[in-house]
Amino acid sequence: MEKKLMMDLLVNSHVMVPNLLLENYYLLGLNEEECMLLIHVHSFICKGNYFPTPDDLADRMSCTPAQCADHLRRLVQKGYINIEQSNDDQIYSEAYTLEPLWEKLIVHYYQKSANQQNAEQEE
Amino acid sequence: MEKKLMMDLLVNSHVMVPNLLLENYYLLGLNEEECMLLIHVHSFICKGNYFPTPDDLADRMSCTPAQCADHLRRLVQKGYINIEQSNDDQIYSEAYTLEPLWEKLIVHYYQKSANQQNAEQEE
Amino acid sequence: MEKKLMMDLLVNSHVMVPNLLLENYYLLGLNEEECMLLIHVHSFICKGNYFPTPDDLADRMSCTPAQCADHLRRLVQKGYINIEQSNDDQIYSEAYTLEPLWEKLIVHYYQKSANQQNAEQEE
Amino acid sequence: MEKKLMMDLLVNSHVMVPNLLLENYYLLGLNEEECMLLIHVHSFICKGNYFPTPDDLADRMSCTPAQCADHLRRLVQKGYINIEQSNDDQIYSEAYTLEPLWEKLIVHYYQKSANQQNAEQEE
Repeated sequence: MEKKLMMDLLVNSHVMVPNLLLENYYLLGLNEEECMLLIHVHSFICKGNYFPTPDDLADRMSCTPAQCADHLRRLVQKGYINIEQSNDDQIYSEAYTLEPLWEKLIVHYYQKSANQQNAEQEE
Repeated sequence: MEKKLMMDLLVNSHVMVPNLLLENYYLLGLNEEECMLLIHVHSFICKGNYFPTPDDLADRMSCTPAQCADHLRRLVQKGYINIEQSNDDQIYSEAYTLEPLWEKLIVHYYQKSANQQNAEQEE
Repeated sequence: MEKKLMMDLLVNSHVMVPNLLLENYYLLGLNEEECMLLIHVHSFICKGNYFPTPDDLADRMSCTPAQCADHLRRLVQKGYINIEQSNDDQIYSEAYTLEPLWEKLIVHYYQKSANQQNAEQEE
Repeated sequence: MEKKLMMDLLVNSHVMVPNLLLENYYLLGLNEEECMLLIHVHSFICKGNYFPTPDDLADRMSCTPAQCADHLRRLVQKGYINIEQSNDDQIYSEAYTLEPLWEKLIVHYYQKSANQQNAEQEE
């Protein structure tokens, strides 16, 4: 049995989480519960599940499925998550994308660097 | 300036977070704020800072330094974090280690797999 | 334009390569060209392309497509790569899997640890 | 014993290798042996060993220590690796840095994107 466990640990055992998210989610107006939910969505996407349900998320979190659905709705409204709809071969499907989150982090990082550079030039 | 930003994004831009932590922290009795704090400590350790202060942590979190210190104390008491003390060349230093957390996750995973196997054999 | 580049660097910018592979490929009888080819196949799989062609691989390597095809054939014969065939909805498809490689690495690691333990007990 | 092995697999089990390196080393004039050597140096640096010896590298590669030393010298000459010297507290030390490699990859990527954009505008 151990071999199977070790294989699981070797293959796809980690999720790469951007340092930019860890260092700046709070400055972007997110709290820990919201950030964890975004990390969970990211980890589902990394494993090929592009539309985890509130139940999928609640299974791993301290919130109920209804609270997860609320969180998701709010993060979509605030522009951290997009829902992309596709209609391939008459099959309708939805997928979450975190592109808006990554873009906000890049813009934030860019502005912080620009501000630092200006401050240094003024000195 | 962009080149410097891009270099930052290329080098050490991500932290590898074990899926075992994301999938099981709640079952281990941790909530999102505690899990995020553990991820922050992990990310500091990965960057070579083995003893981030409550101020370091509070800079990135929605808690005050005092609340971070409380969280840390509780996580040490509950056996998720160890503090290792060393005394090299008369220089005293302290370092956090997350080994107890990783060990709990392995044991939890191992038991879950054993239970599943038993359940399958009984069917 | 920079924003698009930075987004690319932030999202899916790295491939996680197991240390076990880097530390032991030579002991397993692989040379650098073969190990790089396995890393390339791994990186294609991580991006969702489960059956990169010899042309895909040759585009990034110092070998011709014919040499890549030879390498692939030999690595399948030697039991490092499997080809899995599926037939879903009358659509036939093939996929590479590196499971045999990961399994060899686990078994090798396991034996090395067992040997070390025995050596220590005998001392 | 298995628990120790699993801990090893969970902690620091992977090295993050930039896709930019995998996709472009050949265009930068590197072959597989040179790229693997750079990945090895990167993996040593990630583990806190900033100056692996030719013996350290030869232990994992199909080349002799003398050949590794040659490779290293050539990669320094060609501007992929820098050697940084420091003199802290009268202790002289040397460290490899891959910054020149990362910078070449960024510049290459930037130019390729600029060329693509120009080509699209001319159409």
